Amino acid sequence: MSTATLHAPASAESQAEAAILAVVETKRRANHEKNAAEFAAQFATDAVIYNLAPPLVHHGVDVREKQAWLDSWSTPVDIESRDLEVTVSGDFAFCHGYLRMRGTKKGAEGPVDFWMRETLCLERKRSGWQIVHEHTSVPFYMDASLRPAFDLKP
Amino acid sequence: MSTATLHAPASAESQAEAAILAVVETKRRANHEKNAAEFAAQFATDAVIYNLAPPLVHHGVDVREKQAWLDSWSTPVDIESRDLEVTVSGDFAFCHGYLRMRGTKKGAEGPVDFWMRETLCLERKRSGWQIVHEHTSVPFYMDASLRPAFDLKP
Repeated sequence: MSTATLHAPASAESQAEAAILAVVETKRRANHEKNAAEFAAQFATDAVIYNLAPPLVHHGVDVREKQAWLDSWSTPVDIESRDLEVTVSGDFAFCHGYLRMRGTKKGAEGPVDFWMRETLCLERKRSGWQIVHEHTSVPFYMDASLRPAFDLKP
Repeated sequence: MSTATLHAPASAESQAEAAILAVVETKRRANHEKNAAEFAAQFATDAVIYNLAPPLVHHGVDVREKQAWLDSWSTPVDIESRDLEVTVSGDFAFCHGYLRMRGTKKGAEGPVDFWMRETLCLERKRSGWQIVHEHTSVPFYMDASLRPAFDLKP
């Protein structure tokens, strides 16, 4: 917060945006700390999730599956948000930006380090803001290789 | 519309949803008819677009580039929406669902036919609803192949 606005009452929208950024930060920390339950708590139980990996859709976060995935890394799972733009309208919001993912899988020869795109849609519920839709992806090269474009930077 | 609601005034939200579905339909038709200008008109000029192909982001639709892409197909470009869920909140909305893409590239041995995921975020402007963010993707197999999962169906 800049000094110019330090004593001004925060608008409802900037309060909502701060609450949404707190959800994003909790999600980041939960990945880093490999806490699948805390990660899942940021999502509505019926959230529509489009992940990097198949299938096309997941409905809500499966805590056991998520924990097993987190535990398959020998390092912390660092997924850092950048250039996230948040739009709030009443009890709904959407965000888009980039995520940088870094870590080393157990048994892997070296670390991964790449950028993906992320869209988040959130709803304000009685308990606070929750993610009702997440879409993460890496584009792929439309040549014979069809390889994911892990070399792109925002 | 069911007969039960035929004489009731449509709610503001159902009117907004109908207007958004009309944008989605115009986009589909513009692809089918290879009309890049009509396609681009459904998007805000500064829309944040995450495509299947690199780069990570496009800002607005480049009409010449889009027209060249549409003209690179020997058949109509059929991109059909399915299971689109629309959430409207004031002058903003978000949608998610699946797109089935079918067509044959000029010089290709055969047609493509696959499903992708789509997220759309829209804003109601003076001129009507426009897409301010689009995110389309295909997941990829997290094995040695890293190939896009073109074989998934919703």
